Amino acid sequence: MIIVKVGGGEGINYDAVCDDIAQLWREGQQLIFVHGGSHRTNQVAEALGHPPQFVTSPSGYTSRLTDRATLEIFQMVYCGQINKTLVERLQRRGVNAVGLSGIDGRIWQGPRKKVIKVVENGRIRVLRSNLTGKVTQVNHSLLQNLLHAGCLPVLTPPAISFDGEAMNVDGDRAAAATAAAFRADELLILSNVPGVLRQFPDENSLISQISADQIECVSKEFAEGRMRIKLLGAREAVTSGVRRVVLGDARGRQPILRALDGLGTVIIPTQAEEAA
Amino acid sequence: MIIVKVGGGEGINYDAVCDDIAQLWREGQQLIFVHGGSHRTNQVAEALGHPPQFVTSPSGYTSRLTDRATLEIFQMVYCGQINKTLVERLQRRGVNAVGLSGIDGRIWQGPRKKVIKVVENGRIRVLRSNLTGKVTQVNHSLLQNLLHAGCLPVLTPPAISFDGEAMNVDGDRAAAATAAAFRADELLILSNVPGVLRQFPDENSLISQISADQIECVSKEFAEGRMRIKLLGAREAVTSGVRRVVLGDARGRQPILRALDGLGTVIIPTQAEEAA
Repeated sequence: MIIVKVGGGEGINYDAVCDDIAQLWREGQQLIFVHGGSHRTNQVAEALGHPPQFVTSPSGYTSRLTDRATLEIFQMVYCGQINKTLVERLQRRGVNAVGLSGIDGRIWQGPRKKVIKVVENGRIRVLRSNLTGKVTQVNHSLLQNLLHAGCLPVLTPPAISFDGEAMNVDGDRAAAATAAAFRADELLILSNVPGVLRQFPDENSLISQISADQIECVSKEFAEGRMRIKLLGAREAVTSGVRRVVLGDARGRQPILRALDGLGTVIIPTQAEEAA
Repeated sequence: MIIVKVGGGEGINYDAVCDDIAQLWREGQQLIFVHGGSHRTNQVAEALGHPPQFVTSPSGYTSRLTDRATLEIFQMVYCGQINKTLVERLQRRGVNAVGLSGIDGRIWQGPRKKVIKVVENGRIRVLRSNLTGKVTQVNHSLLQNLLHAGCLPVLTPPAISFDGEAMNVDGDRAAAATAAAFRADELLILSNVPGVLRQFPDENSLISQISADQIECVSKEFAEGRMRIKLLGAREAVTSGVRRVVLGDARGRQPILRALDGLGTVIIPTQAEEAA
């Protein structure tokens, strides 16, 4: 089983992504595809007069501030525009894709963060209206059911809280939770950078391999905002039975095939975990 | 099996719709829910600077002019905003809803109309760029699979052409095709009017029952634009094995339960069809 997550940043080559998925699918490879949509969401939110706002946690992670209006715009773009155009692209390539959010069938469920702490002008503030949370349960049986029926699940945030509220979750970490639920062979997290860079944004400074026990150190030393969350997801995956995570580039040709070849930053379990 | 279609016009009481669905679901009733989203799509299209355009066919049916930009806005609203908020509402009521478009798993498939004829200022014009079509195949086995897994399918246009293009289809007729595929006991088509009115918009002039062989006559004599398409869908359903269609009102309390009680315009097969 391979879980492919493709981010929603600028410059993603969706046609190349879908070409690769179709090729692997024809070869009989079991796959689940997870996607984002942040760049397009920002554009639509601006156009609808509700511009995006981002917050930074005290530990340095940035995330989208998600009030109810933002969540509905987020759903329009992620679940409506991007999910359905990806499903259409895959269907046109002969893949029987089925697009779902984490709300549908409670595919991604978890606790909502009732309170988040954010840093503003160097001071910590508490926010209560933010509709965000974390995926802690994956509806493995519904996904397995779809796979058995010959369908390729195309998944996207939002997820659903234990109280039945739609909530924004990080797509990379949701993909990691999905990979963990399947004890996947591979989790590919592709975006518009080549992987973890020693000197961001110098693309020639790629770190080619990291073992799980080095992630925290690498994250602190080298990674900027978004990449730190990807590394967190990667660590969650490899410490939960996923054999390999590759942080790769989705801007060029054959993005998935190249990531499977190890192009990007490869993250492997530490030997102790592998043996366990 | 009951197929419930709820339109996307102004004034729909979605909470009441979801309350009724949850009650029927708890009682073990097999259900598929189909929804529209035209009113909200018009608002979003206006806000995004791509206002809606409608065309009228030579036979007098009006429909949305759907170029690619319109289709993507349509998907944002129908598949993103409305579908996911309905799924969320149902999940909160304990119904394991799964929201899908007709593209997903090719649930609604059919031919795209490569050319449509429209009437403009009394003259007939031919349009070629319109992404519309008609549902002629329903993926019954995928829907059955989801129902067996304890999920309630929540379906919405667009559909997919045989060439793999997303295309706008009429939601009422897609619901009718779905009801026909299941030879459903009931197809409820609910909107923001009480049913077919003898003197539109006088809501006291409701026609309470029509048999299939009377539909064409009633349609020509009494029905305005949208209602004519609903009657077309109703006829397609009852002539394909659906036992009863009710055109009812979704603005008030208990809209589904009241339609099941026969409130609205009830359409039944002609006796010959029923015997066949």
